[in-house]
Amino acid sequence: MRKLTGKELAQAIRAQTAAEVAAGPQPRLAVVVATDDEASLWYVRSIAKAAAGVGIAADIVDLGPAASPGQIRESLVRLSGDGGVHGLMLQTPLPPGASAQELAGAIDPRKDVDGANPLSLGRLAAGLPAFAPATAAAVMALLDHYGVELKGRRAVVVGRSTVVGKPLAHLLLDRHATVTVCHSRTRDLASVTATADVLVAAVGRAGLIGADHVAPGAVVIDVGTNPTDDGGLAGDVDFEPVSARAGALTPVPGGVGPVTTALLLRHTARAANLP
Amino acid sequence: MRKLTGKELAQAIRAQTAAEVAAGPQPRLAVVVATDDEASLWYVRSIAKAAAGVGIAADIVDLGPAASPGQIRESLVRLSGDGGVHGLMLQTPLPPGASAQELAGAIDPRKDVDGANPLSLGRLAAGLPAFAPATAAAVMALLDHYGVELKGRRAVVVGRSTVVGKPLAHLLLDRHATVTVCHSRTRDLASVTATADVLVAAVGRAGLIGADHVAPGAVVIDVGTNPTDDGGLAGDVDFEPVSARAGALTPVPGGVGPVTTALLLRHTARAANLP
Repeated sequence: MRKLTGKELAQAIRAQTAAEVAAGPQPRLAVVVATDDEASLWYVRSIAKAAAGVGIAADIVDLGPAASPGQIRESLVRLSGDGGVHGLMLQTPLPPGASAQELAGAIDPRKDVDGANPLSLGRLAAGLPAFAPATAAAVMALLDHYGVELKGRRAVVVGRSTVVGKPLAHLLLDRHATVTVCHSRTRDLASVTATADVLVAAVGRAGLIGADHVAPGAVVIDVGTNPTDDGGLAGDVDFEPVSARAGALTPVPGGVGPVTTALLLRHTARAANLP
Repeated sequence: MRKLTGKELAQAIRAQTAAEVAAGPQPRLAVVVATDDEASLWYVRSIAKAAAGVGIAADIVDLGPAASPGQIRESLVRLSGDGGVHGLMLQTPLPPGASAQELAGAIDPRKDVDGANPLSLGRLAAGLPAFAPATAAAVMALLDHYGVELKGRRAVVVGRSTVVGKPLAHLLLDRHATVTVCHSRTRDLASVTATADVLVAAVGRAGLIGADHVAPGAVVIDVGTNPTDDGGLAGDVDFEPVSARAGALTPVPGGVGPVTTALLLRHTARAANLP
């Protein structure tokens, strides 16, 4: 079983991004936050730190957990119109009553480095240039990095979220895979996932995918990041039994996660250089 | 085998639309045309005629087959800004060098009654209100009309076009089906399609789907409209052999087609009544 770690790839992307950044004016990423969720705040700080590491300025625009949808929208509109900001993200979760998908429509698509605006998803689906959500893009980058063939192969995505499952289905289709999307209502999940040459788990349920869900030799990508009791992270895939059966498997942590952050930075650098 | 004809459903949609139209100011549909393709022009005239039948005004804005992308865009921008126009469509094919997907971005999403703007597709995928492409919506309307259960069932869509296959995949996912999208690069197509409880053929290749592609008892929806030598239409499904095996099958013509036109009119009436 090949362990598809993301650290080397992430490092290569960061190094390339740092070189791109060094060649031009400094890109700036703004992250709008309206939560006091500790894990989210930790993630946002880790993005800011990673950004600094490649020479990208990052502003955390903290509106506080009591922000109204109107205040969040106003902030996104203002930052979209700010010529000094090149990348713009809206961190979730949001306060009750605020819809991330509705609000993300206020992000200028040219600054939408995490592909959250429905227009970005639609352009992606239509095969037009757009930023893909960084997590979905990270799955594709890992598959490419490890030379996994997609054309004509069967890909099964478990999870139909707007941020991972759905855009990923389009990215895989675009690469000529035959794509199936499963979810909580799928009957006999294992019988579907076991048809996959490439299986992507993006549900957010620790250990959902066991050995019986996986065809011998399949490539398995684990997008899950489920907090464990001891303060660590567990994937959606039950690592030990699946690693005995799969041909290749990403670890959690250390698989998709680091590549996601690196791609957010790459997208920001590219956004700063759009004509 | 149940024959899933679309005529009754189309008639019911038209009658309901006529009643909606009669209750308010007259809706107006504009169809931008830049082709001399006879089949397209015939289709546009048939839409205009059907519109008249329910009290909707239809303008065919014929730019001629030599129109430039700039001229087409200008026309779409003008009609998007025209308060007297409620529905707006861009008919394909377009002149060489003009991209329907790029140009459709100029259609006001509130007037985009055939769901051609990538923003409409993205909103649909994100579960936000949007007009779906009329053909994709017609497939769903037929399935509902005939009481076909989707939740937890396996749906396979053959064809990954932006106007049918992709939006349809999202509509089916939204109804909790497990959805697979196949296409020209799919290996062993029959082995995939034979897993479908609901099979939708939307490729544009006459007779592509034979009996061996279909599970006994499956519901088969044929979106294909392939011109035949004798001036008629043939579907993507080989009707006789498949009808001996499927549980239900739409005819071509007389299945999805009439419902599509009726839904374009319904969308236009609804667009005229958006708040």
